[in-house]
Amino acid sequence: MTLIDRLTALLGPAHVLTGQECAPYTSEWLGKYHWQPLAVLRPADRDQVSAILRIASETGTPVVPAGGRTGLVGGTEAQGRLMLSLERMNRIREVRPEARIAIAESGVILSRLHDAAAECGLYFPLWFGARGSATIGGALSTNAGGSNVLRYGSTRALCLGIEVVLADGRVLNLMSELHKDNSGYDLKDLFIGAEGTLGVITAAVMKLVPAPRAHATAMLALPSLDAALTLLNRLQAATGGLVEAFEFMPRSYQELLLARRPDLGLAFDRFHDVTILVELGATAPRDCTPGPDGTIPIVALLEDTAAAMMEEGLVTDAVVATSEAQRRTLWARREAAAEIGTPLSGPMVDTDICVPLDKVATFLARAESGVAALDPGAFPHCVAHLGDGNIHFAVFPTREDPELMEAMVRVVEDAVQDLGGSFSAEHGVGLSKLGSMRRHKDPVALDLMRTLKGAFDPGNILNPGKVLP
Amino acid sequence: MTLIDRLTALLGPAHVLTGQECAPYTSEWLGKYHWQPLAVLRPADRDQVSAILRIASETGTPVVPAGGRTGLVGGTEAQGRLMLSLERMNRIREVRPEARIAIAESGVILSRLHDAAAECGLYFPLWFGARGSATIGGALSTNAGGSNVLRYGSTRALCLGIEVVLADGRVLNLMSELHKDNSGYDLKDLFIGAEGTLGVITAAVMKLVPAPRAHATAMLALPSLDAALTLLNRLQAATGGLVEAFEFMPRSYQELLLARRPDLGLAFDRFHDVTILVELGATAPRDCTPGPDGTIPIVALLEDTAAAMMEEGLVTDAVVATSEAQRRTLWARREAAAEIGTPLSGPMVDTDICVPLDKVATFLARAESGVAALDPGAFPHCVAHLGDGNIHFAVFPTREDPELMEAMVRVVEDAVQDLGGSFSAEHGVGLSKLGSMRRHKDPVALDLMRTLKGAFDPGNILNPGKVLP
Repeated sequence: MTLIDRLTALLGPAHVLTGQECAPYTSEWLGKYHWQPLAVLRPADRDQVSAILRIASETGTPVVPAGGRTGLVGGTEAQGRLMLSLERMNRIREVRPEARIAIAESGVILSRLHDAAAECGLYFPLWFGARGSATIGGALSTNAGGSNVLRYGSTRALCLGIEVVLADGRVLNLMSELHKDNSGYDLKDLFIGAEGTLGVITAAVMKLVPAPRAHATAMLALPSLDAALTLLNRLQAATGGLVEAFEFMPRSYQELLLARRPDLGLAFDRFHDVTILVELGATAPRDCTPGPDGTIPIVALLEDTAAAMMEEGLVTDAVVATSEAQRRTLWARREAAAEIGTPLSGPMVDTDICVPLDKVATFLARAESGVAALDPGAFPHCVAHLGDGNIHFAVFPTREDPELMEAMVRVVEDAVQDLGGSFSAEHGVGLSKLGSMRRHKDPVALDLMRTLKGAFDPGNILNPGKVLP
Repeated sequence: MTLIDRLTALLGPAHVLTGQECAPYTSEWLGKYHWQPLAVLRPADRDQVSAILRIASETGTPVVPAGGRTGLVGGTEAQGRLMLSLERMNRIREVRPEARIAIAESGVILSRLHDAAAECGLYFPLWFGARGSATIGGALSTNAGGSNVLRYGSTRALCLGIEVVLADGRVLNLMSELHKDNSGYDLKDLFIGAEGTLGVITAAVMKLVPAPRAHATAMLALPSLDAALTLLNRLQAATGGLVEAFEFMPRSYQELLLARRPDLGLAFDRFHDVTILVELGATAPRDCTPGPDGTIPIVALLEDTAAAMMEEGLVTDAVVATSEAQRRTLWARREAAAEIGTPLSGPMVDTDICVPLDKVATFLARAESGVAALDPGAFPHCVAHLGDGNIHFAVFPTREDPELMEAMVRVVEDAVQDLGGSFSAEHGVGLSKLGSMRRHKDPVALDLMRTLKGAFDPGNILNPGKVLP
């Protein structure tokens, strides 16, 4: 029996796609990578995943696990490989509101978990643009971040337990619901963020949190990034840490937004060097219950802080959302980032870097001047989860020149390294950051990672060629 | 040159202790394990640690890293081995209040970091009885918990970066200050909680948090554990998650306290089945600023919640601290746990288990009846970080009978396993939980842990015989 025959016998012909049938699975969201898989496999359950990996191990066939394929670094590239799509494993097994957990299979789309949590008055705080396509398994495999990391942490911080199928088909059951467990090494966190190179995550126990019952959302214009940090610290102090999102959109972002999505409008009637989308989320009655004049206390806290800073000249303009519709409008301008941040035509250099909070301004100055020195006509722009020090810095160069573009990446990453930052904050490594791993990762760390890969996947069948250069 | 000569040449004679000089290093806090090390080494810095491990690797000599030796599972037992004491590496390198981090060497004692944070108006939230002796390195190596895990997480959640010396003496620099970093596998969390079996942690970047400016602390008597869960959920809802500690002391605990530490008194004039020490911590002005009548809002929130539950019969008695001295008195009764929880003479069985929050009552009923069936005269007692589902369940059996005591451990751990819990919540495995690891840990997980140990420490020189059975 050929490999495909064996897989077809296992999964049924409807779930082993080959040739043209693979078309929907041959690129990722950005369209930067294209591939033709050997076959796309759609297992129904964990045992089928296990059987697939046993066959793959036996035959030395590389397997690329995939969720919603909304990743940004080519992590699901699968040229000539078996693509293991977890899309059919999309059951939310259980939501236990009192315990504040949801148990979900890997193929569950994030927005379905958002809905399931909301039905119980709870919230699943992993929130980013691609939430309508991205899956739990993909988010875990890339340790996805998003807009709420500041308050709730990345995917890793939201996960209590996982189930993993290993390269040889064995099932590792780490489906803990516990908040404390010191019984041996922390295996769970090794698989989270490993981009499918150490095992295939098939299910997870995820944390839910009380749903904010009131939001205070505003777009603020500020004179500088220093003023923005002051704003963040004052809001955290005034509210006791209720800042859920603190998103930076500089002048270049506003220019792109106006040019590409004029329908969304701008918050202010002129461009500002620094605009911040801030959102507070409150659950307690003392913050959520409207006063006699209808004021919601958490909104008043935001307004008071902004007003005080305006008197000091540290905030220059402000729009506070007074309805859910206005809140959505403010967010739509931020969530257009992925769309407006790619060029209509021509090349693009994009990065996903992290620096310590107090070094963001220094980083931007260095990166922009470095890029300008290489290509004076280039258009550098960014959007940032400023509360995490995470900047999506990108450049539209004037010409498609691989050497120039590579030089731009290096200028940016050298600044990052110099400031104690990371060249990959939340998108992962995949294929597109392999060079950065080679150049910037501590060699001892890289060596240990290779040791781990060799120990967990000796046949190198799990997403080979990704993550480790 | 002998091994000791080489080490003496490296560290100086004052820092290589042998024979009788080792006396202060020959047992742990509980006095359950005693040993005579080959020598006690006191390196001054990371490079000396590295040189020691190179020599140990070359000569195949086992090395046991040690901090304050306040562990409870025999993790620093070092019979015939080199004990590597990190006590001289006790520099707090840096406290950066704006970035909310402290960078400390492993030998820094927790209470020193508490003091250093307090000087900046910040708080280092790792808090347990042994904080005056325990070190950062020990806390990281055991992923220590304590009384504030409910709000701030275990040691792992408080750590941004570590520096580790590997078995072969290489230095792994993971001293990140970043809140987001997806550049490859999560090595850091593998060393945290590994009890010195994968590497020696020599320094760390730890998170600080805003210091609570007001506390609300109370001892409450309740009719049942179900009522206690209701109390926890209502307090979290009323305050938006400000519960810092939620400690359960049953009737047996109160009996022990009165017998052993009558000077500390009891909160109530009679024994109750369920008493809870609860503490809220607030940082925001709306919670901390006294009203016109002097009431502190966070205290009022606690009082109102307790009063409402009293009307419903869900709280039967309450003492709310109205001064810092009263708060200290309430806490002293909880912090006496380690002292009163050991027998004056005779044997003891102790455990450190975790079950899902809603299964604590079931666990206690099963464990107590199981123990009574084995030894009707035994005295079972416990104290619990109830907000985490973490119970320190112990028994004073009527006789020193290893078989009986082993049977008691099994009865407890079988109940734990059945309820989806862990036999080691926060103390780790060390020597004393090796049997539990063998009996209860998923065999695939155990196999992967052994693979990791073999890959990171092929000569098995790092704390051999601990953690893995």
